[in-house]
Amino acid sequence: MDVKAARVSSAAATGDQLHQFASRLYPICRSITGEGVRRSLALIRARIPLVVHEVPSGTRVFDWQIPLEWNIEDAAVLDGDGRRVVDFQAHNLHLVSYSEPVQRTLPLDELSARLHALPEHPDWIPYRTSYYRRDWGFCMRARERLALRPGRYRVEVKSSLAPGALTYGELVVAGRTREEVLLFTHVCHPSLANDNTSGMAVATALAEWLAGERRRFTYRLVFAPGTIGSLTWLKRNEHGLKRVRHALVLGLLGDPGALTYKRSRRETHEIDAIATHVLAGAGQIVPFSPYGYDERQLCSPGFDLPAGRLTRSVNGGYPQYHTSADDLSFITPAALEGSLAACQRIIEVIESNQRFHNRSPRGEPQLGTRGLYGALGGSGPAEHEHAMLWVLNQSDGTHSLLDIAQRSGLPFPLLVEAARRLEEAQLLAPTGEPARIASGAPGAKRAAARRRAGGRTVRLNKS
Amino acid sequence: MDVKAARVSSAAATGDQLHQFASRLYPICRSITGEGVRRSLALIRARIPLVVHEVPSGTRVFDWQIPLEWNIEDAAVLDGDGRRVVDFQAHNLHLVSYSEPVQRTLPLDELSARLHALPEHPDWIPYRTSYYRRDWGFCMRARERLALRPGRYRVEVKSSLAPGALTYGELVVAGRTREEVLLFTHVCHPSLANDNTSGMAVATALAEWLAGERRRFTYRLVFAPGTIGSLTWLKRNEHGLKRVRHALVLGLLGDPGALTYKRSRRETHEIDAIATHVLAGAGQIVPFSPYGYDERQLCSPGFDLPAGRLTRSVNGGYPQYHTSADDLSFITPAALEGSLAACQRIIEVIESNQRFHNRSPRGEPQLGTRGLYGALGGSGPAEHEHAMLWVLNQSDGTHSLLDIAQRSGLPFPLLVEAARRLEEAQLLAPTGEPARIASGAPGAKRAAARRRAGGRTVRLNKS
Amino acid sequence: MDVKAARVSSAAATGDQLHQFASRLYPICRSITGEGVRRSLALIRARIPLVVHEVPSGTRVFDWQIPLEWNIEDAAVLDGDGRRVVDFQAHNLHLVSYSEPVQRTLPLDELSARLHALPEHPDWIPYRTSYYRRDWGFCMRARERLALRPGRYRVEVKSSLAPGALTYGELVVAGRTREEVLLFTHVCHPSLANDNTSGMAVATALAEWLAGERRRFTYRLVFAPGTIGSLTWLKRNEHGLKRVRHALVLGLLGDPGALTYKRSRRETHEIDAIATHVLAGAGQIVPFSPYGYDERQLCSPGFDLPAGRLTRSVNGGYPQYHTSADDLSFITPAALEGSLAACQRIIEVIESNQRFHNRSPRGEPQLGTRGLYGALGGSGPAEHEHAMLWVLNQSDGTHSLLDIAQRSGLPFPLLVEAARRLEEAQLLAPTGEPARIASGAPGAKRAAARRRAGGRTVRLNKS
Repeated sequence: MDVKAARVSSAAATGDQLHQFASRLYPICRSITGEGVRRSLALIRARIPLVVHEVPSGTRVFDWQIPLEWNIEDAAVLDGDGRRVVDFQAHNLHLVSYSEPVQRTLPLDELSARLHALPEHPDWIPYRTSYYRRDWGFCMRARERLALRPGRYRVEVKSSLAPGALTYGELVVAGRTREEVLLFTHVCHPSLANDNTSGMAVATALAEWLAGERRRFTYRLVFAPGTIGSLTWLKRNEHGLKRVRHALVLGLLGDPGALTYKRSRRETHEIDAIATHVLAGAGQIVPFSPYGYDERQLCSPGFDLPAGRLTRSVNGGYPQYHTSADDLSFITPAALEGSLAACQRIIEVIESNQRFHNRSPRGEPQLGTRGLYGALGGSGPAEHEHAMLWVLNQSDGTHSLLDIAQRSGLPFPLLVEAARRLEEAQLLAPTGEPARIASGAPGAKRAAARRRAGGRTVRLNKS
Repeated sequence: MDVKAARVSSAAATGDQLHQFASRLYPICRSITGEGVRRSLALIRARIPLVVHEVPSGTRVFDWQIPLEWNIEDAAVLDGDGRRVVDFQAHNLHLVSYSEPVQRTLPLDELSARLHALPEHPDWIPYRTSYYRRDWGFCMRARERLALRPGRYRVEVKSSLAPGALTYGELVVAGRTREEVLLFTHVCHPSLANDNTSGMAVATALAEWLAGERRRFTYRLVFAPGTIGSLTWLKRNEHGLKRVRHALVLGLLGDPGALTYKRSRRETHEIDAIATHVLAGAGQIVPFSPYGYDERQLCSPGFDLPAGRLTRSVNGGYPQYHTSADDLSFITPAALEGSLAACQRIIEVIESNQRFHNRSPRGEPQLGTRGLYGALGGSGPAEHEHAMLWVLNQSDGTHSLLDIAQRSGLPFPLLVEAARRLEEAQLLAPTGEPARIASGAPGAKRAAARRRAGGRTVRLNKS
Repeated sequence: MDVKAARVSSAAATGDQLHQFASRLYPICRSITGEGVRRSLALIRARIPLVVHEVPSGTRVFDWQIPLEWNIEDAAVLDGDGRRVVDFQAHNLHLVSYSEPVQRTLPLDELSARLHALPEHPDWIPYRTSYYRRDWGFCMRARERLALRPGRYRVEVKSSLAPGALTYGELVVAGRTREEVLLFTHVCHPSLANDNTSGMAVATALAEWLAGERRRFTYRLVFAPGTIGSLTWLKRNEHGLKRVRHALVLGLLGDPGALTYKRSRRETHEIDAIATHVLAGAGQIVPFSPYGYDERQLCSPGFDLPAGRLTRSVNGGYPQYHTSADDLSFITPAALEGSLAACQRIIEVIESNQRFHNRSPRGEPQLGTRGLYGALGGSGPAEHEHAMLWVLNQSDGTHSLLDIAQRSGLPFPLLVEAARRLEEAQLLAPTGEPARIASGAPGAKRAAARRRAGGRTVRLNKS
């Protein structure tokens, strides 16, 4: 930790703080565009210096096009007596997201095709969207759906679909090198607590923690709408993707389920080994599949990024998924805090999982005279001496410390410490470490470095 | 299925039809050369337009030489009373194949060394040959062997060993490409029903079925004597072997045992994965070994073709093997029909197991606007939508649809259908599909294409 | 076996002979330098024509330096009555190896830190060293340590630490090729029977046996002190290491434990497969680790030699390890003889585990006309015929006979015999066999060949 880093707080948020922040995000009616996303990013920017990007409607994004911006003022279904029997003001899930403006009266049997409910969970409102086909509809509790009497109903959707922009936020925490770790979370869902106020809260706290210390890698956090948002980010950052060494999609991090890591498309990237190591005994690993969150785009064959995904329960894997039952009582401070800790641990392993070259590779170097090895021979070496022998033997530039941990059966932290001592003794040199960003140089040089890092360098004040 | 193909029958033969054809082939006394092979090929040519090749005795074939042609008129061992105690007319297995002409009288103790029997199966006649060492001998039931009284016996073998030819048949069913699938069956055994009238019957019916529809691959069926016949074919077709993408040796397909696929020499060719897929739950897979039928030659290190073998019970794996008990009662219509169906299924998978390139590989293409994906979001995709996502994600030119089936756990036909729809939507292009044979062009162009296909193009009339 | 080889004895030593030789080596006080090593090598040289090398103190050896030579005349701790309460003359383990000269009187409480004992084994003297930090100390039975009364003690260590040399012995048994098999054993331990008079005795007998027959490989045996000795040898032979095809560290070969093979650093070298094959059912295989004997140096990343290690119990794996309980009663004639037999068997497999090219690779060659295959067809081939088919099929230059044994399930000796017969029939040629040393040529040519072999060619008289 350098002097500057020491000036900022590196304490992680507590579970209660995470839950409070999720609670502030929860009521906002987000969608893939519109004011809901802007208000959410504003809450996050109050804590971390997010750069907010606006990309105009109609912009081509690979096979897609950014749609018209959608905003919603009010929506309801009113019965003959003028009572709001379905009311957007009561819960923003009541309206199918991206519903076009409607002012109409129609009989119940005609309205029925527009009403979505869950017979198997009569008290839950489902979540539905219609982003790319102009449409409208309402979601409601099955119990209330059954109570609707035949007759004519007034439908009022005071929404707008108009040229505007897609909004996303981005934060670059510059490291000692320009090699990047990409962290992605989606911000497009309305009042669903786990999916994804949990991810936004954890990613925001993680950004604060990351800014507390200058690290080996540059960290880039993206808060964007799912699918079209990540595609837009990919389109605008295509030339920088070659710097991405690891990527992690974060979301669904507050439910009481165990942590789940979903492997990258290749399943053998370093991030896969790292997450597997960190979750050992504390979570489950699931194979890659092309359905889910933004790993779908990051792992498409044209990008094929080393991107895994961290959630607790998986999407679709719990009954509350995409219903009003995914509310603030469904996510817990303990789960949020555990998720944040897992992210931090993954990053710590990413940082320390280096490959080295033994600088004295012919035979063993003489550790005893360097004070690294017990002087009195005859009895066996201690565990930390074994760790040094393993690191020296395996450090031919191809094995990471995690590889060595797996082969030797020794604890990873012991090997990190052994490597640190050996590097200090100049017996070890990191392999293929990318060119460092000039540091300590004021003015022009540092600004250039920041530009090269492809984003703004962040220094946080203690929040 | 194109217009021409629609004009011919693509119905597979029934089990009864297969058994009837095997019954017509059964009585013929075949060997590695001679009239028996010619008569068998003539029966086959009455159904499919086989091209029959004759290669002269004495021709060098790699390390071998085509032997003198052997023909047999009659053979018997007669006792002192002139009774035919061993009679070739009664069963053609009684004579050691390729026995030289003999007219001799000799005592039983001298004759004994020439008499082969199976003490463990006293009522069965064994099958023996002496192709490459001039010799003669008789095979008989052990029970009858024991009944022979001491005394002098007259041996009469009215055979001829004279310059002639080795005969084999070949049929090329031209496909849309010049890439070939090679199908091999042996025609050298005398009255052994499973080994190999079953293989000849199944291969003939398969040829009829293949000719019913123009396919992606060109199919080449070879009906040849074992070992020297396949070596002769290899010698004469050495320059075309580079076009062989898959090869399958067929034989022993009528016994009541389960289907058995024997892997290729490398054990990891695509044909191995395909046959394993097709036989899953319905047959067994056995490793490669250098003993068996013509896979011995196809998989020799100098050719190393992607050749597997399909049988029911394996050679040597049932007591009736190479005895008179391998008769028409040993093979069943149901077994023959099941074998033909397995061959057809293997060919269908060969045909459809393509590799593709995703033509919109950066991110997912927008399936919804193409009518390929449900428009209303929020609930999970259907299985056929999952299949499209898997095909798009994995189609980087390296994974076949079967690879994708294995990774995703989705049914292969669902993935074939997904690929078809995606190709139709121009989102997918086949990878490394070889140059197509010009089609639809009459006259010279088509003839050239046929010549390039290395054989005669076949159009069958409905049989 | 050529004529010359037939003139010398190839009989292996019996267990009793091995134990007797170990008994002669046992009393000598060896260390990493000094007269103890020289006297031990002299005993060995009386049996095999070892070349003894002396490398001066102070010589740089990679990261190390050859220390001052240590010699010891006498050492004791005397009580107030002049009694030798710790006496080097009684057991050479009593003195910490490389103790500097001392003449001092000091109270027990000050002496205590210099006294090493094993409370858990009160009757055993531990073995301790201090090679690279000037120090002194005594090792004693815990029972006697407890009996020491408070008071002043006289310490006398009549040792010398002076410029001299490190001594090691080397023997080259020239083979038909210059490719080498390296055999290493350590000679630096004082009166420890298993560690390593057992290794010295087995390696000496092995050298006698090796010299009895001219083999395919050149064998190089090194008798050197551990660590600094092997480093010194590596430094002086660095340019010849490219010729090392297999290496084996030998030691701890007399205890009653089962044989243990420790794999090389890569774990997939041919020596690993060979030792695993030889020890199947008769010993255990353990993974590589960077702690142990001279495999630490041979397998350091800068050399990464194909070096395994053969012991019985592993170092540190038995309570007597590095104590006075590792005495001549701990090692048995039967264990020593079994170890020698295992070494011989490993060498036999090294010699015979060739890779071949099938010289008739297109199809099977005609074995019958060469008398290699039964002439009468129809029944299955015998096991030795199967072996020939397997060897022919797999001999494309990439598969060794051991690979073929593993794939086919056939016994290795059967495949060796099949290969021999096929080579005799000119159907097989060895692959990549290195240039042979000119043989049979007298004078200059042979001398040149000897020089190229990088050592002295050995011809032993019958011992």
